Amino acid sequence: MASDCIFCKIVAGDIPAARVYEDGEVLAFLDINPLGRGHTLLIPKTHFARLEDCPADVLAAIVRRIPVLAAAILLSVGASAYNILCNNGRAAGQLVEHVHFHIIPRFPGDGAVTHRPPLTLDTSALADISEQIKRHIKNP
Amino acid sequence: MASDCIFCKIVAGDIPAARVYEDGEVLAFLDINPLGRGHTLLIPKTHFARLEDCPADVLAAIVRRIPVLAAAILLSVGASAYNILCNNGRAAGQLVEHVHFHIIPRFPGDGAVTHRPPLTLDTSALADISEQIKRHIKNP
Repeated sequence: MASDCIFCKIVAGDIPAARVYEDGEVLAFLDINPLGRGHTLLIPKTHFARLEDCPADVLAAIVRRIPVLAAAILLSVGASAYNILCNNGRAAGQLVEHVHFHIIPRFPGDGAVTHRPPLTLDTSALADISEQIKRHIKNP
Repeated sequence: MASDCIFCKIVAGDIPAARVYEDGEVLAFLDINPLGRGHTLLIPKTHFARLEDCPADVLAAIVRRIPVLAAAILLSVGASAYNILCNNGRAAGQLVEHVHFHIIPRFPGDGAVTHRPPLTLDTSALADISEQIKRHIKNP
């Protein structure tokens, strides 16, 4: 537990939250700044700042709960689509430095999650970037 | 393999892609409509339409590659932040019905992924939604 982490305090019960699911490894609760009704956060109970800090077994424990939680969320709000979003780093929109997966139910045209127009990169530019990434991959 | 699936055709080598990583279970390649340089898609080689169609072992196989891939992508483009995004259903922005995880490197203020202002829901409204979701959770 990180003593200054609001999500660790929610795990510990020191800060209230609208909990939807809990077991030994993970906790799911409603986002208090929801992008739509049913917007849920799924977190590991152990403190890790970002996704890349989580061991593989923790990541596996998180993602295997997503299908059941997403199904329940969709039924509850009458949606058929959803985003899974995990922001890592402030520039990516991460506000709490305890890794969390957003489960965001979506309706056609709701604009809850949007993006800028894509870049235009030709085949040569894409090949150049992919070669750079391949060179940086370590012990996959 | 789904015969009409563009990602299955990429896996099979019938359609070219700027590949960055491949093993027996997953394939990663650059998005041809990138929200930024290095925007990568990570997919299971087996065809599943949406996240909730993937067995737990497939989800685990996907997510355990994210840390290594994200590290390589960030180094390649000089970013320190990234989003993981998985869209399920057309209303959530899913255009290809073969489950895929976006790894999107981010820079401060780039606007690559944005969202609408959050809703204001009081404690009572959140409690009501969380109770509905809890009732719909089946065999977690």
